Amino acid sequence: MPIFLNKESDVDVLIIGAGPAGLMCANSLARAGVNVRIIDERPAKVMAGQADGVQPRTIEVLQSYGLADRLLREGNQMHMVAFYNPSPSGGIERTGRAIDVTAPTARYPFEVTLHQGAIESIFLDSMRSLGVTVQRPVVPTSIELSQDEAVLNDPNSRAVKVVLKHLDPTDRQSETEVVHAKFVLGGDGAHSWVRKTFGITMDGEQTDYIWGVVDTVPETDFPDIRNRCAIHSNNGSCMVIPREGDKVRLYIQLSDKQFVDPSTGRVDKDNVSPEKLLEVAKKSFAPYSISTPNPIDWWTLYIIGQRVASKFSVRDRVFIAGDACHTHSPKAGQGMNASMLDTHNLATLPPAWKITYILRGWADMSLLKTYEFERRKYAQDLINFDKKFSTLFSGKPRTEDNQNGVSHEEFLNAFQTFGAFSSGIGVHYLPSAVVNPQHQSCATNLIVGQRMLPHIFIRAADARPYEIQDLLPADTRFKVLVFAGDTPDKAQLERVNALAAEMGKPESFLTRFGHGEPAKVFDILAISSAKKDIVNYTDLPQLLRPHWSKVLLDDVDMFARTGGGGYEAYGIDPHKGALVIVRPDGYVALWLHLSSCRTSTIILRRSWWRHRVVQFYCSVPGLLDDCVYTGNRMYYRL
Amino acid sequence: MPIFLNKESDVDVLIIGAGPAGLMCANSLARAGVNVRIIDERPAKVMAGQADGVQPRTIEVLQSYGLADRLLREGNQMHMVAFYNPSPSGGIERTGRAIDVTAPTARYPFEVTLHQGAIESIFLDSMRSLGVTVQRPVVPTSIELSQDEAVLNDPNSRAVKVVLKHLDPTDRQSETEVVHAKFVLGGDGAHSWVRKTFGITMDGEQTDYIWGVVDTVPETDFPDIRNRCAIHSNNGSCMVIPREGDKVRLYIQLSDKQFVDPSTGRVDKDNVSPEKLLEVAKKSFAPYSISTPNPIDWWTLYIIGQRVASKFSVRDRVFIAGDACHTHSPKAGQGMNASMLDTHNLATLPPAWKITYILRGWADMSLLKTYEFERRKYAQDLINFDKKFSTLFSGKPRTEDNQNGVSHEEFLNAFQTFGAFSSGIGVHYLPSAVVNPQHQSCATNLIVGQRMLPHIFIRAADARPYEIQDLLPADTRFKVLVFAGDTPDKAQLERVNALAAEMGKPESFLTRFGHGEPAKVFDILAISSAKKDIVNYTDLPQLLRPHWSKVLLDDVDMFARTGGGGYEAYGIDPHKGALVIVRPDGYVALWLHLSSCRTSTIILRRSWWRHRVVQFYCSVPGLLDDCVYTGNRMYYRL
Repeated sequence: MPIFLNKESDVDVLIIGAGPAGLMCANSLARAGVNVRIIDERPAKVMAGQADGVQPRTIEVLQSYGLADRLLREGNQMHMVAFYNPSPSGGIERTGRAIDVTAPTARYPFEVTLHQGAIESIFLDSMRSLGVTVQRPVVPTSIELSQDEAVLNDPNSRAVKVVLKHLDPTDRQSETEVVHAKFVLGGDGAHSWVRKTFGITMDGEQTDYIWGVVDTVPETDFPDIRNRCAIHSNNGSCMVIPREGDKVRLYIQLSDKQFVDPSTGRVDKDNVSPEKLLEVAKKSFAPYSISTPNPIDWWTLYIIGQRVASKFSVRDRVFIAGDACHTHSPKAGQGMNASMLDTHNLATLPPAWKITYILRGWADMSLLKTYEFERRKYAQDLINFDKKFSTLFSGKPRTEDNQNGVSHEEFLNAFQTFGAFSSGIGVHYLPSAVVNPQHQSCATNLIVGQRMLPHIFIRAADARPYEIQDLLPADTRFKVLVFAGDTPDKAQLERVNALAAEMGKPESFLTRFGHGEPAKVFDILAISSAKKDIVNYTDLPQLLRPHWSKVLLDDVDMFARTGGGGYEAYGIDPHKGALVIVRPDGYVALWLHLSSCRTSTIILRRSWWRHRVVQFYCSVPGLLDDCVYTGNRMYYRL
Repeated sequence: MPIFLNKESDVDVLIIGAGPAGLMCANSLARAGVNVRIIDERPAKVMAGQADGVQPRTIEVLQSYGLADRLLREGNQMHMVAFYNPSPSGGIERTGRAIDVTAPTARYPFEVTLHQGAIESIFLDSMRSLGVTVQRPVVPTSIELSQDEAVLNDPNSRAVKVVLKHLDPTDRQSETEVVHAKFVLGGDGAHSWVRKTFGITMDGEQTDYIWGVVDTVPETDFPDIRNRCAIHSNNGSCMVIPREGDKVRLYIQLSDKQFVDPSTGRVDKDNVSPEKLLEVAKKSFAPYSISTPNPIDWWTLYIIGQRVASKFSVRDRVFIAGDACHTHSPKAGQGMNASMLDTHNLATLPPAWKITYILRGWADMSLLKTYEFERRKYAQDLINFDKKFSTLFSGKPRTEDNQNGVSHEEFLNAFQTFGAFSSGIGVHYLPSAVVNPQHQSCATNLIVGQRMLPHIFIRAADARPYEIQDLLPADTRFKVLVFAGDTPDKAQLERVNALAAEMGKPESFLTRFGHGEPAKVFDILAISSAKKDIVNYTDLPQLLRPHWSKVLLDDVDMFARTGGGGYEAYGIDPHKGALVIVRPDGYVALWLHLSSCRTSTIILRRSWWRHRVVQFYCSVPGLLDDCVYTGNRMYYRL
């Protein structure tokens, strides 16, 4: 490690904490070419235990960074969930099996389980290839935000001063360094130093539910040991989470007082061992046997608490993310959901593209307000779900003797509702203020504020099938998808040519928001609804095909194994088409009737077009200062 | 490079030549833990040009070594072929588009194009992780085979003595080394030193067709530049092969005399330049324009010759593979088929698992005879196809003025016949000597001697879908697939239990051919035809599920997106099941009625079971000395 002697340095973004939240953000910024630095107090990355679940939407997000392949190669997949309840003959019996992920549009219709260290490695290797490594062990000792309004309002000012202490594990000498940063992200966990330093409170409460967690390779005759299982027994509840290789995580419900120190009211970990936890689990599993001839990989104890930070940012200069701003059934209670949702949340959370736009001078500082707006609402929804679900799961099962207990149907219902939310697929950033029926006929199934629906199209130039999500990478660019309709039809092709001509004009959004290099801000794709044997990609206007690979067709592949039906799936008229704008993070920003995109039409229709046009403007950098926030919804001034 | 001073060393297998043939073999042997060495005379791997096509079956084979992912990531895919012929109005016009690969069962229904250097890198990186690197530049100077029959018949004798010269590119000092090898593979190209040294002749002839090849990034308005194209114009024929990135390979037919030195009859390369070749191409492309503002990546000239080596091996100790034993439309004539088929051929060719079995003492030397038997027949078929096809492609197109020319229909027909062959999917190693209709009802669509049909099954333990080919890796093991039928049916489960009991007995093939470690020779998978909501993987007998991952179901996945219909696709009765043995290289060795697998039944039915049983024995090491060869077919003594 280099020696820093009261050194001073500058950086655009300083990230404190190299867990999943910090790493996702660092990798994203490094890819965008932002000057970023990331530190962590731990001398090495997590080796075992901790979070281990990656939700369907998180896999899509990782894929948008090109990182899903390795996750899928190394991780376990959970496709099925099994429910066990008390059997009339004693012990437990299976009451049903079901889909683990209640998200029919998921591109990856399963959860991946893999220990946090392996997930961190995926980011660390990606970052290394971009020239960024985590500096560790390094701790921040003070953080100071400029009090000067002019400084705070200048996106290029280094308004945050942080003092770092570089610990040297070998000779115990440490050196200090003063860092001047434009932005700071605190991804420093549930006990966040950043959060505490700025006096941000955590609002919420702690429950009485205590759970134990054990990671091991069990020996068992339990037939669902490789499925996620919710076991409700009269001897306590248990959740089975199969993991990479032959590993399994067990979440084991403990009776309220069993491991609590009566003098402090806190969990007494000294009084517990993984062996003791497994003794409890064995009783839940009966009549099936479960034992661990293999070493315990990791174990812990938790009391469930559900809290959200009162704010997620300070003056749009310092942000907190991940465990630092929301804790919930943390690693217990409703099984590994805590871990899953942490990682999921962290993965989609960082405002990397927003920071990038500010740093490039393409957007106003107020674009950053959408971070707290979008993510804090999500965290609150999460806590609400979590409370309901963990109460059900920690509750006693319904039996003949206990008619007030939780029934299988009640639990299954909650599980599926919760699953739809926890998959991350349903996240909806901008509740649609106005739903204009005239527009629902244009792209009915692409909901503004939701992530772009996955679908397979084929490339016009070479008939190769492509998942459209793979053509919308997280490369900081807005994607302009021109669903060009039936292009071999002469009249339609004329409309498309006219659109391209409009888009090429100086007053077009390409020029106005292109900051002199429109190809760095916008990536254009054209999607024809016509068939592969007749379409020439060269028929489309040049502006819509900056490269031969940019023209797609809504058609099946050469063997009709995949593809086709995309216009229908999106609810777009195959003759008339539509224009869809997708944000850099993969969420739909806007859709329009193709003809509405032409300046003349927009002028004609301006009166009832207000909200749509403004939602687009909201997503296009430079115009966000026209927005005001009211409660959960976003409204815009014109 | 280390200095070798008249050093002597021992090795099990010495491979001369680190092209695709040599590398595939070296990688395969290294994976099997065989002591292997590979040398090459070139100081570095190929950087541009050369072969560039990978056929569907070759992709499957690469995948069985875990190498397809990278190929698919780096390579271009050809899904569609376009045909252009003379237009009545002058120039060319498109007469049709079609599927590029005529192989409906292909798992990867396309060809991958990628320059040879990148393909070599895939092998080199895989080998490096196994501790094997290519020693270069090293040339062999002499090779000597023992004349002692006793030595030749002892598989453990180092019967081949090779003298190597280590060239030192820096100080021009070279050192010699004497290597004693058990086996030598000559993958040293069309001018093979190994082949010439052993006086093996190349039988065949040279044609008059001369072709030029240019790799470049063209600028063009030709709408099919990203498809494979066969262009027949009145100004000569041309083939377009789109490649990785924006690169394109053009095969350009030259008039017979244009570039031939009349004094020697050979191609006069001094008189040609890539610019001259492109001038010829431009005339074929009219009315479309094509030019190359970008540098020429690689170019060459070829006269088509079609030849096969008179033998592929010397005393089953020295083998030749790839270009060393067959040349055909080499990099010209019928487009890039030469390259594709070379690589395809090389990739499936090396008898690596056979050598491994001999070296482990598990098989008799005569197992190696199947190499020449299987691959020489293939090479001859290839030449026959190639002759027909290249004549058609080099011929003049049919026009109003030339009614004797090649019509589009005639060419398309030949193209598709050729494609079915060249995809590699149709390779059938053991023409079925006997097709017993009584057996056709057992696994009708799994043809003995053809590669195992790809299909998606789901794992019983966790409902995760798997391509069965991915569960049959090239790990030198025979795969025993027990299609267990309707296992929840009590009577059927009893039959399956009885089979498992038989397989566990000392007289079973598992024990007899297991060489004390049956799990190293046989990998067992059980496939039930029942549904995922009711099957417990723990219901199957322990012998059929050495691990929880070894039980599959013929069912759709949780979202019914994939899977199901496997028994039907294979032609197996979903109630009764079947037993299928797959060779280590992925080819079906045997199938049986499930009940026939029990010793008692085999004894009862021995009279009409002869051929099937023997085909299995033929594939199980240690019994191949019972085979005799007659022409194209294989017969067995009992």
